[in-house]
Amino acid sequence: MRDSGEGGLNTSLPDASLRALLVFWFFYGGKYYMKIDNVSYRSVWVDADDGWSVHIFDQTRLPWSLDILRLTERDQVAHAIRTMQVRGAPLIGAVAAYGLALALRQDSSDAAMERDASLLAATRPTAVNLAWAIRRMLTRLRTTAPADRVAAAYDEAGRICDEDVIQNEAIGRQGLELIEEIASRRPGPVNVMTHCNAGWIATVDWGTALAPIYMAHDRGIDVHVWVDETRPRNQGASLTAWELGRHGVKHTVIADNAGGHLMQHGMVDMVIVGTDRVTRTGDVANKIGTYLKALAAHDNGVPFWVALPSTTIDWTISDGVTEIPIEERNGREVTHIQGRDETGAVTTVQLVPDGSKGANPAFDVTPARLVTGLITERGRCPASADGLCDLFPEYV
Amino acid sequence: MRDSGEGGLNTSLPDASLRALLVFWFFYGGKYYMKIDNVSYRSVWVDADDGWSVHIFDQTRLPWSLDILRLTERDQVAHAIRTMQVRGAPLIGAVAAYGLALALRQDSSDAAMERDASLLAATRPTAVNLAWAIRRMLTRLRTTAPADRVAAAYDEAGRICDEDVIQNEAIGRQGLELIEEIASRRPGPVNVMTHCNAGWIATVDWGTALAPIYMAHDRGIDVHVWVDETRPRNQGASLTAWELGRHGVKHTVIADNAGGHLMQHGMVDMVIVGTDRVTRTGDVANKIGTYLKALAAHDNGVPFWVALPSTTIDWTISDGVTEIPIEERNGREVTHIQGRDETGAVTTVQLVPDGSKGANPAFDVTPARLVTGLITERGRCPASADGLCDLFPEYV
Repeated sequence: MRDSGEGGLNTSLPDASLRALLVFWFFYGGKYYMKIDNVSYRSVWVDADDGWSVHIFDQTRLPWSLDILRLTERDQVAHAIRTMQVRGAPLIGAVAAYGLALALRQDSSDAAMERDASLLAATRPTAVNLAWAIRRMLTRLRTTAPADRVAAAYDEAGRICDEDVIQNEAIGRQGLELIEEIASRRPGPVNVMTHCNAGWIATVDWGTALAPIYMAHDRGIDVHVWVDETRPRNQGASLTAWELGRHGVKHTVIADNAGGHLMQHGMVDMVIVGTDRVTRTGDVANKIGTYLKALAAHDNGVPFWVALPSTTIDWTISDGVTEIPIEERNGREVTHIQGRDETGAVTTVQLVPDGSKGANPAFDVTPARLVTGLITERGRCPASADGLCDLFPEYV
Repeated sequence: MRDSGEGGLNTSLPDASLRALLVFWFFYGGKYYMKIDNVSYRSVWVDADDGWSVHIFDQTRLPWSLDILRLTERDQVAHAIRTMQVRGAPLIGAVAAYGLALALRQDSSDAAMERDASLLAATRPTAVNLAWAIRRMLTRLRTTAPADRVAAAYDEAGRICDEDVIQNEAIGRQGLELIEEIASRRPGPVNVMTHCNAGWIATVDWGTALAPIYMAHDRGIDVHVWVDETRPRNQGASLTAWELGRHGVKHTVIADNAGGHLMQHGMVDMVIVGTDRVTRTGDVANKIGTYLKALAAHDNGVPFWVALPSTTIDWTISDGVTEIPIEERNGREVTHIQGRDETGAVTTVQLVPDGSKGANPAFDVTPARLVTGLITERGRCPASADGLCDLFPEYV
């Protein structure tokens, strides 16, 4: 979304802490932060001219081309989430919310609304923000007369987006303190490792895990990012590297296998990752392979932080390994890979011999015992029921 | 090497234990084990017609084509090792030994021999078998008159190859017992995870980590292999999957990130990997990412075994993390990948945005504390100085 420079935030927010954040947000600047070629964007926005169609970047085309998609129907939104044209736990919640608004334009009856909400909520199973966003939309819309639902849905989806931006900015400041602390201890770059993409294009703006890194970079802290390529879909190599590069942040792409070795040799100061769902006890579901990095960080005394808006917390479950459903994606994402060939064409190549098949669990769960702490919009806390309850007493 | 069915082993072996293995070898069958399309091969062989040129498979072309290279000069051998046309710790030792024989055909003087030996030993830094093979060649050749050195070099290189085959077969039987034990406990397939390629094409024949799997399969045990693709060079996806598939062994290729999740959910019965160097204390250098799998195995109570011929043990060092040199390869192996495109052409594609660079440490070190045990040609032992000393008292 091109930013007029005037912010454009909703001012009616649901609780006091968010109002406090909003005050801070205006104080801090109130502009969209993330830029591509010096133009500010969000990752999802409503068309400024027609006022109802929804725009996203096709993230399956990055980093090779920046294609903007116009979504006008529920099924286009469902397709975009399922095929990962939009991905990232916070962003898919926001886009699904707009998907419900688009659906209501066709039919705003109770029956249609419940059906469309269920369909959108089922597009991906692991991230809890998706279910949270749909639930929040329904909470408002069920008490809204059918004739008023379209307007209410756009308003509520807009609030979800704006709050996401505010929350991520707060997360960024919380994480920034950790980076500043390392930078103050010794000269040389602060080396941060991250897995997958929890940057601004995984959210509406700022990102979660990358927000502290962008803030540190913009304040002149010498920060360098080890970017796990994040097989099989290579969100690190294709999205995180792209984001960081466009923002001018130093980074190096590594095979997912390399992290343990780098930690053994003192080349990683901290790890920050995002998450798709956190249990009330602090277990963390995130992109497949996160658990392995957490084990290595624990084994080498490297701080392992998880950045999340509180919408990512699933207060209903306690045991991440047994209770969080893990999406099993198509094995073809393992056996084939897309890249740019020497002619400049984006090409898919097969990596395994004919007859060999692939398996593709998309997430894993990192037990809370391996997590140094959680970085939320309300502050940092231990990855535990007590830690989360201290920050979010209203959910206890 | 096409097998006549008559074995063709050298009968003069250096110690009693190897003689005992040889007796077993003939008893067990004495044939080459591994087949491609029902023809038996070794991974390196001397031309049957001219009696001196050396043949290898170009492993950089697998699994897309089975190209046999004829090596006639030292520099071709050095190039083949450096560019990983041959790879796998045991195999590069064997091929380097033949490389010295080829060099001696040009100049068998003391000065040339020492120079050529040093050059070949320096082609790759991490695997200790390479240095071991060259040292063994020199031990014999330094006491051989220059005029007799060529014949002696071919003889010694042939012995190195034959002993490798015998040792790997013994490793296979040691590991087979572990698989049989799991199979006897419960119905259903035994799920073995492996990383990189320690199969027959990483050795002269049989393989190390895969030898127990081939034996189990051939005895009718229901075995299924989780094949880590092993980024960045994808030896798992391209070589291990190819080997297993050609032999008819059930396998599934997974992203390197997936192993921890599979172990958390009871889908892995044991891990077996090869190694490029083991310290006298049992620390294990192997392909980058091995350490992460060992951490996950340890965290989930999954047995983690390392298969090796004793030539892989570096008796001179005790601390793997600080003392084993880790090869840093070109970052392009991370930023680009090769596969087969839709037209059937083998194509290289770029995976990262322009301007993003890659780092590429090729190995990591798994501390002995994470290793359930070592599988050697003399038996299994704990990964410790005491464990290794019990099996190999002559090195203490």
